[in-house]
Amino acid sequence: MSVVTKNFTVATSGKGTYEITDKIEALVRESKIKNGIVIIFAQHTSCSLIVMENADPTARRDLEEFFDRLVPENADYFEHDAEGADDMPSHIRMVLTRTSETVPIADGRMQLGTWQGIFLFEHRRAPHWRKIMVTIMGE
Amino acid sequence: MSVVTKNFTVATSGKGTYEITDKIEALVRESKIKNGIVIIFAQHTSCSLIVMENADPTARRDLEEFFDRLVPENADYFEHDAEGADDMPSHIRMVLTRTSETVPIADGRMQLGTWQGIFLFEHRRAPHWRKIMVTIMGE
Amino acid sequence: MSVVTKNFTVATSGKGTYEITDKIEALVRESKIKNGIVIIFAQHTSCSLIVMENADPTARRDLEEFFDRLVPENADYFEHDAEGADDMPSHIRMVLTRTSETVPIADGRMQLGTWQGIFLFEHRRAPHWRKIMVTIMGE
Repeated sequence: MSVVTKNFTVATSGKGTYEITDKIEALVRESKIKNGIVIIFAQHTSCSLIVMENADPTARRDLEEFFDRLVPENADYFEHDAEGADDMPSHIRMVLTRTSETVPIADGRMQLGTWQGIFLFEHRRAPHWRKIMVTIMGE
Repeated sequence: MSVVTKNFTVATSGKGTYEITDKIEALVRESKIKNGIVIIFAQHTSCSLIVMENADPTARRDLEEFFDRLVPENADYFEHDAEGADDMPSHIRMVLTRTSETVPIADGRMQLGTWQGIFLFEHRRAPHWRKIMVTIMGE
Repeated sequence: MSVVTKNFTVATSGKGTYEITDKIEALVRESKIKNGIVIIFAQHTSCSLIVMENADPTARRDLEEFFDRLVPENADYFEHDAEGADDMPSHIRMVLTRTSETVPIADGRMQLGTWQGIFLFEHRRAPHWRKIMVTIMGE
């Protein structure tokens, strides 16, 4: 049994979903781990991770619109707005999604379903560099 | 330390919550792993996993009603509806819940609290066969 | 590779977020595990775990207010209210957040980002003792 820890960064250009499946699959392959798990972790409080349908881009557009409506900017009770109108909604959207995702590995590959992709969900309007940690454990 | 990977399927008959705790507990027992973790993973984008109160069925009915109201079918801005009115809401409900759940193992048993059960949350109206992967790691 | 399992309890005094980062960091240090993961698990169905911004308390107050509005008490369709008006909302808020969080460990420390803290999110009005299990796996 062994542990492999890797890092990478994702350049985001505003709110939206950014697929990182291929990057993680490559790290799993490099690790030579055949059976186990991979844990993906976002080191931020204003972006998050989701597993989402990765075939039809309209599914992701609808998802992003849903979150824009569920957690609107400028709610009258928000006090935390030092970094702008998208500051507080970004924390709430992170809490409603994930900071980490765990995916099983078998036969040396992530066991994602046919339509599953792993996405960084950026909640801020400005471009950011987002740090992702990947921990692969198994044998 | 060892890794055990198992699969099973759940036959769903429409929207709702389906308890899978006993199935996972049996796999943990068979694995002979005494201390570690079990990771449950749903290989789909229109159902998800939750840990939920498993004593009183009204709690789950209220939960399902909450999600029906939070993510209604036929929102006027939905573009992704190729598979029907329950298509896009199913992806959003998955994102708001989990694709994987992790539970600690000690003394050869999952360490769930008294009222905790693990449920598949089906978001589609039609019956489906849902594939669940279970990875048990520990010693 | 080894597994270390620990428990602790958190005394809550009503709805709100309670930081447990330092407690978990101490358990990671004591475990002597240098590379791996830590899994934090709440053994309850009416509180949950979140990773959240831990610098500005107004961010957490706004988050708590958001959840109070998203999942109001006394919704007219709730049937499950044996334990009071905060009973059913507590289960829904748990499902919308996490029962477990996983954080990578490298160089003997949790790899949280600069502003990330781990919080118990109490959803009940009355004081409770909440049991948290911590599983540290790695080498």
